[in-house]
Amino acid sequence: MTRFALTLEFDGTPFMGLQRQPHGPSVQQAVEDAAHAITGEDVTLYSAGRTDTGVHALAMRSHFDIEKDIAPFRLMEALNAHLRPNPIAVTDCEVVDDDWHARFSCIGRSYLYRIANRRAPLTLDKNRAWQVPQELDAEAMHRAAQALVGRHDFTTFRSAHCQAKDPVKTLETLTVERMDDEIFIDVAARSFLHHQVRSMVGCLALVGMGTWPEERVREALEARDRQALGLNAPPHGLYFVQAFYPEENNT
Amino acid sequence: MTRFALTLEFDGTPFMGLQRQPHGPSVQQAVEDAAHAITGEDVTLYSAGRTDTGVHALAMRSHFDIEKDIAPFRLMEALNAHLRPNPIAVTDCEVVDDDWHARFSCIGRSYLYRIANRRAPLTLDKNRAWQVPQELDAEAMHRAAQALVGRHDFTTFRSAHCQAKDPVKTLETLTVERMDDEIFIDVAARSFLHHQVRSMVGCLALVGMGTWPEERVREALEARDRQALGLNAPPHGLYFVQAFYPEENNT
Repeated sequence: MTRFALTLEFDGTPFMGLQRQPHGPSVQQAVEDAAHAITGEDVTLYSAGRTDTGVHALAMRSHFDIEKDIAPFRLMEALNAHLRPNPIAVTDCEVVDDDWHARFSCIGRSYLYRIANRRAPLTLDKNRAWQVPQELDAEAMHRAAQALVGRHDFTTFRSAHCQAKDPVKTLETLTVERMDDEIFIDVAARSFLHHQVRSMVGCLALVGMGTWPEERVREALEARDRQALGLNAPPHGLYFVQAFYPEENNT
Repeated sequence: MTRFALTLEFDGTPFMGLQRQPHGPSVQQAVEDAAHAITGEDVTLYSAGRTDTGVHALAMRSHFDIEKDIAPFRLMEALNAHLRPNPIAVTDCEVVDDDWHARFSCIGRSYLYRIANRRAPLTLDKNRAWQVPQELDAEAMHRAAQALVGRHDFTTFRSAHCQAKDPVKTLETLTVERMDDEIFIDVAARSFLHHQVRSMVGCLALVGMGTWPEERVREALEARDRQALGLNAPPHGLYFVQAFYPEENNT
């Protein structure tokens, strides 16, 4: 048995998320089916993060175990061939120790959220960013965001379906930066609650619009109540960017 | 009668190009149909450039004349509403003098060509870049490209269907730059022959692969013969970026 670590890039638009679902296509199912076609084995894919319908990944980290003797490069090429026409690509594949686990060994995750701050509908970036027509004050959003950085109870920013035992998480970074008519929100933490990034982005957008005063973000956090949530940003602006592991020099 | 100058952004994937075609959807037809729906008038759209099937535009400049009394902002909003679900957006709309012509007043055009230099198939950038699996030497491509800059007979780099009277054009700039696994080719000239950008990019890619020595680009140019062309790069990596007009301070 050999454990392979995969780096996956995918367009989340046609999938009901990364995780296998009984009633629709998922990234996990597509990758497992491709692996089965190559090896004849029933493999199970484990991943650093779970992503919702429509959420993208630039470099998701995953792993599975295979009995068949196959070189990592050949496996990667075969997976990519079998994954077509699904918008999923294996961009890296390597053999790892049996105790390496894409989810449980992961010590950090980062996400990007893209807002297209313009009146015109999106064309080339359709399903790649959240179009917000009202002018957003990105500097106010960045200032307000700093109230969320650090160790907090994020109950306010948690989905009703969140399965995490503990709502206390430590947010490492949350930065908001404008470049022309695009706003980039970068966020990193050891782990996140379900819907946490989208919930935080939604509230920051309300600040950007002037609907919420900046201090309302801190108040919402301190309320520890989902009723205090202003807005959940849509999934199609969200990208899983990177997973961090001990003894890896991530860039 | 009022002349409106439009800035158009579009995803070229579903269109048989910008220009109206008898047997398929075009950007021109979609915009003219939207204008007709708003005004009841038969309008004709003129544009700075013609783009082929699959070629994109970030800021095409176009114009049409309308009898109906309508403010530019309202017209832009109405066009965008009627253009849905076509991946075409009007990002700017203004009233111009009657002698301003999107095509004939234009004194410069710039294009971008994107190459995704990677083995893995494209997911988020599918139809947005040309995937080239062989490693490309972008510096060699840039050096070779400089032979094309300046005033030359570009017959080699011209489509059999090109309608231009004169194959002599002056290429202002042609730069090739790598950023991680992407290669960006920026090109600008007063005007271009049909397929000129894609033909130049194709030959530069052969240089990048090592299939062509650098000097072969100059030899192909000097041959003034379409048989000397190495490769026509596919349309989906090409973007019309900007049109330049006198008395406009383009950035």
